[in-house]
Amino acid sequence: MSKPIDSLYVFSGSSNRPLAEAICRHLYVPLRETRIERFSNDNIYIQLGDSVRGKDVFIVQSLGPPVSDNLLELLMMIDIARTGAAASVNAVIPYYSYARSDKKDEPRVCITARLIADLIETAGADRVIAMTLHSPQVHGFFGIPMDHLTPMSVFIQHFDMQDCESTVLVSPDHGYAKRAAQLAIALGLSVAVGNKRRVQDDQVQIDNILGRGLSKYRHAIVIDDEIATGSSIMEVVRVLRRIGLEEFTIACTHGLFTGKAPKHLRKLKGVREILTTDTVALGDKKRAKFPSYFKVLSVAPIFAQAILCNYHGRSVGELFEFWPPHARG
Amino acid sequence: MSKPIDSLYVFSGSSNRPLAEAICRHLYVPLRETRIERFSNDNIYIQLGDSVRGKDVFIVQSLGPPVSDNLLELLMMIDIARTGAAASVNAVIPYYSYARSDKKDEPRVCITARLIADLIETAGADRVIAMTLHSPQVHGFFGIPMDHLTPMSVFIQHFDMQDCESTVLVSPDHGYAKRAAQLAIALGLSVAVGNKRRVQDDQVQIDNILGRGLSKYRHAIVIDDEIATGSSIMEVVRVLRRIGLEEFTIACTHGLFTGKAPKHLRKLKGVREILTTDTVALGDKKRAKFPSYFKVLSVAPIFAQAILCNYHGRSVGELFEFWPPHARG
Amino acid sequence: MSKPIDSLYVFSGSSNRPLAEAICRHLYVPLRETRIERFSNDNIYIQLGDSVRGKDVFIVQSLGPPVSDNLLELLMMIDIARTGAAASVNAVIPYYSYARSDKKDEPRVCITARLIADLIETAGADRVIAMTLHSPQVHGFFGIPMDHLTPMSVFIQHFDMQDCESTVLVSPDHGYAKRAAQLAIALGLSVAVGNKRRVQDDQVQIDNILGRGLSKYRHAIVIDDEIATGSSIMEVVRVLRRIGLEEFTIACTHGLFTGKAPKHLRKLKGVREILTTDTVALGDKKRAKFPSYFKVLSVAPIFAQAILCNYHGRSVGELFEFWPPHARG
Amino acid sequence: MSKPIDSLYVFSGSSNRPLAEAICRHLYVPLRETRIERFSNDNIYIQLGDSVRGKDVFIVQSLGPPVSDNLLELLMMIDIARTGAAASVNAVIPYYSYARSDKKDEPRVCITARLIADLIETAGADRVIAMTLHSPQVHGFFGIPMDHLTPMSVFIQHFDMQDCESTVLVSPDHGYAKRAAQLAIALGLSVAVGNKRRVQDDQVQIDNILGRGLSKYRHAIVIDDEIATGSSIMEVVRVLRRIGLEEFTIACTHGLFTGKAPKHLRKLKGVREILTTDTVALGDKKRAKFPSYFKVLSVAPIFAQAILCNYHGRSVGELFEFWPPHARG
Amino acid sequence: MSKPIDSLYVFSGSSNRPLAEAICRHLYVPLRETRIERFSNDNIYIQLGDSVRGKDVFIVQSLGPPVSDNLLELLMMIDIARTGAAASVNAVIPYYSYARSDKKDEPRVCITARLIADLIETAGADRVIAMTLHSPQVHGFFGIPMDHLTPMSVFIQHFDMQDCESTVLVSPDHGYAKRAAQLAIALGLSVAVGNKRRVQDDQVQIDNILGRGLSKYRHAIVIDDEIATGSSIMEVVRVLRRIGLEEFTIACTHGLFTGKAPKHLRKLKGVREILTTDTVALGDKKRAKFPSYFKVLSVAPIFAQAILCNYHGRSVGELFEFWPPHARG
Amino acid sequence: MSKPIDSLYVFSGSSNRPLAEAICRHLYVPLRETRIERFSNDNIYIQLGDSVRGKDVFIVQSLGPPVSDNLLELLMMIDIARTGAAASVNAVIPYYSYARSDKKDEPRVCITARLIADLIETAGADRVIAMTLHSPQVHGFFGIPMDHLTPMSVFIQHFDMQDCESTVLVSPDHGYAKRAAQLAIALGLSVAVGNKRRVQDDQVQIDNILGRGLSKYRHAIVIDDEIATGSSIMEVVRVLRRIGLEEFTIACTHGLFTGKAPKHLRKLKGVREILTTDTVALGDKKRAKFPSYFKVLSVAPIFAQAILCNYHGRSVGELFEFWPPHARG
Repeated sequence: MSKPIDSLYVFSGSSNRPLAEAICRHLYVPLRETRIERFSNDNIYIQLGDSVRGKDVFIVQSLGPPVSDNLLELLMMIDIARTGAAASVNAVIPYYSYARSDKKDEPRVCITARLIADLIETAGADRVIAMTLHSPQVHGFFGIPMDHLTPMSVFIQHFDMQDCESTVLVSPDHGYAKRAAQLAIALGLSVAVGNKRRVQDDQVQIDNILGRGLSKYRHAIVIDDEIATGSSIMEVVRVLRRIGLEEFTIACTHGLFTGKAPKHLRKLKGVREILTTDTVALGDKKRAKFPSYFKVLSVAPIFAQAILCNYHGRSVGELFEFWPPHARG
Repeated sequence: MSKPIDSLYVFSGSSNRPLAEAICRHLYVPLRETRIERFSNDNIYIQLGDSVRGKDVFIVQSLGPPVSDNLLELLMMIDIARTGAAASVNAVIPYYSYARSDKKDEPRVCITARLIADLIETAGADRVIAMTLHSPQVHGFFGIPMDHLTPMSVFIQHFDMQDCESTVLVSPDHGYAKRAAQLAIALGLSVAVGNKRRVQDDQVQIDNILGRGLSKYRHAIVIDDEIATGSSIMEVVRVLRRIGLEEFTIACTHGLFTGKAPKHLRKLKGVREILTTDTVALGDKKRAKFPSYFKVLSVAPIFAQAILCNYHGRSVGELFEFWPPHARG
Repeated sequence: MSKPIDSLYVFSGSSNRPLAEAICRHLYVPLRETRIERFSNDNIYIQLGDSVRGKDVFIVQSLGPPVSDNLLELLMMIDIARTGAAASVNAVIPYYSYARSDKKDEPRVCITARLIADLIETAGADRVIAMTLHSPQVHGFFGIPMDHLTPMSVFIQHFDMQDCESTVLVSPDHGYAKRAAQLAIALGLSVAVGNKRRVQDDQVQIDNILGRGLSKYRHAIVIDDEIATGSSIMEVVRVLRRIGLEEFTIACTHGLFTGKAPKHLRKLKGVREILTTDTVALGDKKRAKFPSYFKVLSVAPIFAQAILCNYHGRSVGELFEFWPPHARG
Repeated sequence: MSKPIDSLYVFSGSSNRPLAEAICRHLYVPLRETRIERFSNDNIYIQLGDSVRGKDVFIVQSLGPPVSDNLLELLMMIDIARTGAAASVNAVIPYYSYARSDKKDEPRVCITARLIADLIETAGADRVIAMTLHSPQVHGFFGIPMDHLTPMSVFIQHFDMQDCESTVLVSPDHGYAKRAAQLAIALGLSVAVGNKRRVQDDQVQIDNILGRGLSKYRHAIVIDDEIATGSSIMEVVRVLRRIGLEEFTIACTHGLFTGKAPKHLRKLKGVREILTTDTVALGDKKRAKFPSYFKVLSVAPIFAQAILCNYHGRSVGELFEFWPPHARG
Repeated sequence: MSKPIDSLYVFSGSSNRPLAEAICRHLYVPLRETRIERFSNDNIYIQLGDSVRGKDVFIVQSLGPPVSDNLLELLMMIDIARTGAAASVNAVIPYYSYARSDKKDEPRVCITARLIADLIETAGADRVIAMTLHSPQVHGFFGIPMDHLTPMSVFIQHFDMQDCESTVLVSPDHGYAKRAAQLAIALGLSVAVGNKRRVQDDQVQIDNILGRGLSKYRHAIVIDDEIATGSSIMEVVRVLRRIGLEEFTIACTHGLFTGKAPKHLRKLKGVREILTTDTVALGDKKRAKFPSYFKVLSVAPIFAQAILCNYHGRSVGELFEFWPPHARG
Repeated sequence: MSKPIDSLYVFSGSSNRPLAEAICRHLYVPLRETRIERFSNDNIYIQLGDSVRGKDVFIVQSLGPPVSDNLLELLMMIDIARTGAAASVNAVIPYYSYARSDKKDEPRVCITARLIADLIETAGADRVIAMTLHSPQVHGFFGIPMDHLTPMSVFIQHFDMQDCESTVLVSPDHGYAKRAAQLAIALGLSVAVGNKRRVQDDQVQIDNILGRGLSKYRHAIVIDDEIATGSSIMEVVRVLRRIGLEEFTIACTHGLFTGKAPKHLRKLKGVREILTTDTVALGDKKRAKFPSYFKVLSVAPIFAQAILCNYHGRSVGELFEFWPPHARG
């Protein structure tokens, strides 16, 4: 007895059209057209391809590179939908890159994750749907309702099919430790945490890895929220190898693999699998640089499900990035 | 008896550092440092170089290419200044490129000039200082105080030194006609207006030029608010030449000269001078492509003056982009 | 399968009850009662005649004279509907008079068109429906969704029935030139533009009329967005007659005809028709002053259609005041 | 050691220029010029006569008839001052007429006193200074700081010079009873309260007057916040006379005296004095209709004092409309 | 043909669960679970027991003691419902205690009734439903739609069953006089009003009771909006007894009966009935202190009705706390 | 040449008057009076003791138990200062208890840290000064400028005087690990981190302590942001003792010591010192329950310094809770 699907309109910015298309396939709705061009003065021009008057509009846009252009596209699309009198405007942001700028860890810097949350609200979004924010507190930067989704079900499903004998789950730093611990519990594994020190933006140093009896394991699943240059991951692998581990699975939600990351990861010895989700579009060219054991697990079903729950006013429930009760720090 | 200048802090984004430096020279204040970097995931990182607590902060940033990056830099710098407890945060935007997106001339497009005005307000600016907005109504898109400056004094000063015998002032279209008429009056010239039709973003057609006795003039000053590809200007010159004019001065406030504009303008016959101001930074490389009769008139003194008036609470007066009384359409 | 019409409630302020009634006739809904009175201290008292809880409320009010009273009535009615928990509050403003105050063309004046847009938003309107704003940029003064309608279909329909032999379409100034050009294209006519200079609020001077081969035409349709004292129109007719034209049709969207306008227009020789729409209520007395060739074309069907589209969440499409693609200045 | 007075700018709207001038005389500052005109379409045009950049601006405007025009003037002047970058914008509203519309005493009516407070805040006022609001709760309708002044000192000073033998102070209704009681205490008098029932806006009925031993007094001071048609006052006098009182002093803060009020009051027998303050401008013509015992007590010194306190950041203290501690209903 | 009841979700805070349950019984809906706990640092922890996505949520919470805790619970529950994407969030506040702090009757105090209205709006309520606010103006402190209900129907129903021979209705002060007059009219009784002076928060003095022929009555219904310590009521009874009345009925909407109020009221001679509604939860222990003639009249049906009207978009009509037309002070 | 101190007004709520007094002693300003009382219906009544017109107001209030009352006091005091026209309103919140509710770690709970930040902004604070927020991201919940202070200088000063031979610094969990690491570096010590699992609000379990060569140390400084029941700390000590450590120093910023915490801590063997700051007022009675090696380090000089920097517009610099450059997770 639920309402017909024909008021659910999905649009996509430039950043991750393949994911938007996959989401639409799961929803059995067409991806609506969007015309995105540049004026000669580098101004962006956008026209939505369908009238949104009275529709529930979902705009899919990841904030991967080029981040600023993708952000402005998103803001403009939200504004068009709002002033075009949509019934609701929902920003679906699979990768919210600025979640990393979530605190003042130096004087006179920007908590950009909050700034952009405010900009999205100003443009006119009624709701945001995102996945694996760098820290769970970023949720609170949004004044509007936000669904913070987790790809855990996809990872659990994947590892359930693998041999996890003599395996330990490793988070490169304290920031991801809690989520790693959750996944470890679900997979029946132990967890270890790297004591990371960032020397420069693209250079980190792992002083040691906190965890007992590490040397007794043979295989480590090293998992993080995001891999950009991959330096953290490679440093962790280096330290683990020194301790005596031999095989490694590398996993993350947001696989950016910027610069020479594909090349460096390819050279890494003893890697079973490199896993990422499709929150960031890689492009065929970059994907071709990876070895055969590189795999992309799609989170399109998760986003489709969350969109549907919102459209029909049903609980999003287990899709949420939640910690077990009372797991407060 | 006015307050000392030492609470006036000027910062510059990446877009037009030479203009910011020139403004500071006119103000006899140092340009404060700003550290602007990129994280490996393409996120922008900015740190202001001085504490702004209790200072009147002026942030100079043009929205020239790359527009989205420059806009985000501006918003982040405003946010840092605001949350850093500046006494006032003033956005100095010599070129506000999105002023061109000032109306819904198609369904489901964005009045981006209003959207960005709202974003600037959300980020926390108390005031905006801009020059030659594409249409004067854009002023009203800002909810905060805004000083809309004109470079007219610079142009008048320049042309007063030139031979303006047998000269007509030509606006390529109706949009700039009123401002052209103002300048014409100041210079004691007649004015003519092109009947422009835009075929594509970078292709226009001038059906005819409205103005009487055009054929009797020898020299035309063709002036517009902005030159990007230069197609409008070149079309106007083509039509004027057909009518019988022989010499041309080309002038604009915002000289972007994108793509092959320098090359095309260089080839144009009978050009006395190509004039622009420095609201957009050209870069040495692009500037080298221009002939010797290309001149950049600096508007730094005008911005310096406006900043000073604001700092001391004095009238900005004649720097304003104003129309004579009752010149309402 | 659309929702029943019984949640669509139309109310009218004092300014243009005949238009509100005509709109209701087209919608087949009753015009709901509104009690509007004055307290002895000149305060306005308003009571809506029906509970609006959960209804989609459309309030029809033109901002014709007395403008301030009509504006306050509108704001109060919006406030009552909002605090009375209407599902949506829609301000239908056929004539938004302050659209003319759209820029700072003098120091220390008010961009009243923006101020009033903000007041309407503060009072609680969710949407505005207006017609032929003085400049298209005024659209951007509204932070809420707005439908900017055009009466063009009504004019085209009218002129299609007339003899348009040897006819040119004339806009009195640059401001209305683009819209005049649009209508000219639709009617297959040429266009000319007056070079207007406003000497005082009610006194203008047309220096010349820009357009080629004007003297070859016999009949001119002189069209503007608004006729108040009619001085612009009469000045245009004077100049056109001097050039050699003999017959004139005078047309506008917003016919105020203030002061001696009816008398002056009546005296004008060679006038075929005087046309206006019913966005402003004239009153029987004023209407009686006009000659028989004065005609009012009703835009009630256009507003009824726009209201219906909004009520049912359908595209308003061709009712919009839009320019052809890429016709950006 | 306080700051010089030269940043204090006072402007006046059309409603009560004499009071604005009197305030300026007390402040020893000039009343700044304001140009207020009408366009032919009845739109208001306002230009402030001096640049307000960095100034503390006080705009004096009473909301007497024509209320809507005066309100719009006020909102426009506030907007001009705000967007003109005044250091602070202070609305001085001696008579805030809509304070009477302070509750929903019928369904589907407007709490206009709150609506207008919101409009004033939207326009950009930083503070409001008003006098004798119809109910003290109206203070809370303003989200911005507001100084609610009382003319009590002026009345006390006046009555201290009069013979108050055998005198009772009478409030026509419960609404003004508390303030009347305060004044009574200050003057050492007893108080009585009318049991008013409003039959129509301009017609009331006093069922009886609550107070003991009324018949023993000879003279009553009948005081109210506002006199419009004067019907309440005359009804009270009628009842008091029936009880046996012979002489009457009629007093109010806001003397509107609309319609035939001057005529009716003139005819009233046994009236010693008719007193009002100058919060509402009467005009010479209306004033001429009153008998010689009609007196206007100026509150200009009170407003001047409040403005000065605000300008210098000093306590406004005893100018406030305050009730004695714990006098909560 | 109205929508099914299954999107109407009622939650209750800690303050008045019995009333919330009674409302639910009248609505034939379950009271949804809410988990309310304390962290060891005294922080409140709340979890709503059901997903509210797309539901119309009504949160029942009285602001009785402990007021601050109850207020924070309410704000948190509103926030959870809003960020949990409820279709609408409705705060049902049977007793809005801070309505008493409705004016600045001393310098440097808080109009807390407005502050809390703003906090409720900030937390995210779309509507408020309250009963018998201390003054009707408090309605205007809310920027969001509010239904101000009256328990009058319950009192009228009750007294219609009683013997009202030789009975007068008495309001202890001017503040409640109008509402008492309304009830008096409905019951066909006369009304008298106490001239109350508050000596301290819990100590008042009634100078006299305004009303004619009081001594001829035998029985008085003394009614007020709220009884806390009961000192006003007991003072009124004392004065009435002195005048000659013998029997008393004591009634109020909000029965707090703090401190020794039950004990003092119990001792009062000649009391027929003590009546209150259930807007404040008394608790079995406090209730046991009252004599048998203490009665609680439930307003649950009134709130249930108002909730249903809002849910279905129907007029709340006669449930409103309204004054008869034109009864403006 | 800085401005005189006489516009700096400090007020204190009920929660931590001793700290407010200590701050004032460091600032050489008087603590201004505040009258805080309860009405009989449990409503809070507050009156500030001095006019704040034009003053820079700092309100000192910790959110310790009773948290809700203290919060409402704070909001009311902010509101009074704002509507009393203070030049700036600064909320000094030494202990912001709700910082712990910083994420949605369960469905349908409240990110109360954000909610309260919004309430504080709504009430009218211009700035917040706080210390050791539970997570650094909470900074971003505030839309207004906030100074996030650290007590590190006080701890460093203290430990520099102690014997730190064979000492390791231990954080009970990952959340405080980074700050512990910072302090460790400053003191030249190693750091270890507990792998905490919270079983219930007041019951935690430390699975193991991550850190190498722990058994070689004799003395551990166990430090956390907050100690409420002390269960985490005691669990850490238990595990450390099992590993072989013998002596312990217990330290925290916010010492609540609720329930039996003093008793339990007293019984703990091998404790050198128990250290806390005075962000939370303990009261003499609770303090008397502690052994002689319990010490309170005052952070009053740090708050005084931050207040002074803000008052004079100087950099707060090293007082900030900052991470070393690029220490992004």
